[in-house]
Amino acid sequence: MNVQHITPIQWNDGKVRFLDQTLLPEQEVYIETDDAGVVAEAIRRLAIRGAPLIGIAAAYGVALATSKIGTLVGRAAYFQKAVSFFASTRPTAVNLFWSLQRMQTVFERNEHAGVDSLGKTLLAEAVAIHMEDAEMCRMIGKHGAGLLPKHSTVLTHCNTGRLATGGIGTALGVVETAWEQSNISHVYIDETRPLLQGARLTAWELSKLNIPATLVVDSAAGFLMKQGKVNAVIVGADRIAANGDVANKVGTYSLAVLSKHHGVPFYVAAPSSTLDFETPSGESIVIERRKQSEVSSFFENEAGRGTVDVDNLVFDVTPHELVSALITEQGVIHELSAKTLAELRRSSSVYSVGAMT
Amino acid sequence: MNVQHITPIQWNDGKVRFLDQTLLPEQEVYIETDDAGVVAEAIRRLAIRGAPLIGIAAAYGVALATSKIGTLVGRAAYFQKAVSFFASTRPTAVNLFWSLQRMQTVFERNEHAGVDSLGKTLLAEAVAIHMEDAEMCRMIGKHGAGLLPKHSTVLTHCNTGRLATGGIGTALGVVETAWEQSNISHVYIDETRPLLQGARLTAWELSKLNIPATLVVDSAAGFLMKQGKVNAVIVGADRIAANGDVANKVGTYSLAVLSKHHGVPFYVAAPSSTLDFETPSGESIVIERRKQSEVSSFFENEAGRGTVDVDNLVFDVTPHELVSALITEQGVIHELSAKTLAELRRSSSVYSVGAMT
Repeated sequence: MNVQHITPIQWNDGKVRFLDQTLLPEQEVYIETDDAGVVAEAIRRLAIRGAPLIGIAAAYGVALATSKIGTLVGRAAYFQKAVSFFASTRPTAVNLFWSLQRMQTVFERNEHAGVDSLGKTLLAEAVAIHMEDAEMCRMIGKHGAGLLPKHSTVLTHCNTGRLATGGIGTALGVVETAWEQSNISHVYIDETRPLLQGARLTAWELSKLNIPATLVVDSAAGFLMKQGKVNAVIVGADRIAANGDVANKVGTYSLAVLSKHHGVPFYVAAPSSTLDFETPSGESIVIERRKQSEVSSFFENEAGRGTVDVDNLVFDVTPHELVSALITEQGVIHELSAKTLAELRRSSSVYSVGAMT
Repeated sequence: MNVQHITPIQWNDGKVRFLDQTLLPEQEVYIETDDAGVVAEAIRRLAIRGAPLIGIAAAYGVALATSKIGTLVGRAAYFQKAVSFFASTRPTAVNLFWSLQRMQTVFERNEHAGVDSLGKTLLAEAVAIHMEDAEMCRMIGKHGAGLLPKHSTVLTHCNTGRLATGGIGTALGVVETAWEQSNISHVYIDETRPLLQGARLTAWELSKLNIPATLVVDSAAGFLMKQGKVNAVIVGADRIAANGDVANKVGTYSLAVLSKHHGVPFYVAAPSSTLDFETPSGESIVIERRKQSEVSSFFENEAGRGTVDVDNLVFDVTPHELVSALITEQGVIHELSAKTLAELRRSSSVYSVGAMT
């Protein structure tokens, strides 16, 4: 096992060092920068991706931007600009806004601190967001692994592992933990079009972890279930509405419907920071549409396809009724509803800045 | 409209001329050959694909092989070898075997004919298979178009059009006919991984026909249905068992389940030659597994993915219960079962060599 080499982001002596995930699995290229704009651009172009990792990267990015302010004059305006800049990178990932809100609160509490002191405090907050995420992943893995019977075969979508988080991952953290406990013996990986996060990233991670896995095209999932080859589906979430509706990578909703039809449990694994209590249901979630060429650029020359429109809606929304259980760091919720999620909110430190462990 | 330029195969002065579909949509390259081996290889490498077109190409190929026999001695053995050679190219397409069986019967009836006479008779049979297919497509289009209410939006998978048949296509023939009658106003095209027949071929065809279409990743179908954007799903078939179970491109089964969940009609359009009365149900259909690199070779360098297994099962089987109707050249069958299909067989010329019009 070589897992210590999967380090998608870290703070390194006044700089942010991150793995350019667009180059995986061919090349492992790390970029080290003291320019917050480079970090924001990395989020936008998916070099840094995965909802929790985006939140961590944005926090480091804001800390980086703030470290450049040598004076108190205009500091608040500069800080706001940095926050807005990061907020504009990806519209669906709620962790991004949650993380920026934490940095904002720390800034406001220390608005009159000295330049050095503020910088250190903001960096400490970013590191805390990172470390808390690692611990959340560990707990999600622990809670989720217990749901699976021995020697299960699971199917997963997109990438929700070490490359997407500050720890072992969410859905893939469950896979890793369950594998260590012999609760999982095989994993089917959806390749996850259009950007192939499953084929490029999850396959790479599971291969590094020596977990037996088979890559399939997304449309094969239904027939695998029909053949009895899938005991559970485990996916992550980019945003969960107050009623439990789940926004996640396109294809998640189809998997949920197929799971229901075949009586296969459909699990969503996500930290409670993914919960967006301001959004009542999935219907009000703004879904990101990315550029057409992500779908149509398979061929060097696009002749003949110019007149055909492409809809590259990269997320979809799964109604809470189709989710068998939500696995969070706080525990497992079997019946997703506004009521059960509100209870989770009360019993936990969700949205209580700095209190999470 | 420029549809006369879509000519995937034709007999041309003692040679077979075919479009190399692996190069679409970038290049329209035609290959002209008098070597039956080149035709067989073209079927194997998908330069010629689509169940009906494979049958037509194999018939021309066998006619080509036979035209090379200058003597009566060893003719039968040579003919058998050619038939076996074509039979080995693609295991799932029943039209291939049906077409070869027709050529075989004609050969046996004319076993003692002169060399020239036999060649002409076999070519005439191949041309008949081709022309009958064009007529079948026309009738399938006519029958299917009537099923759709005005201004429907349909979703289709893979390529089932002019590039897959000897005429306007099966499922896409329905689309073209319904479009001409204003029964269809928009088409969603599944890109159809792994070989992207939707993105490469169907998008190219619909663009040539000026039919408004939107290309989506395969996993988006469920969410499109949930949003009420799909009024019907229309797919083709590679093989239909005696009880109505349908073998077709991987992803078809998922679409059928998703259609059922959303109350969207799921139509299969196929000539009756696709029916395989020797196969009682989908469970006994041999499903083709193609090479792993069709899934994993998105990137020039495959480093990091070598240790992950790929399952490239390129077809799946949809149980007849999930099919709202089968559209054939004989008419529409609304309740697919061994009984209704047997009636179709009795009332039609299915498997009666040479009798079809």
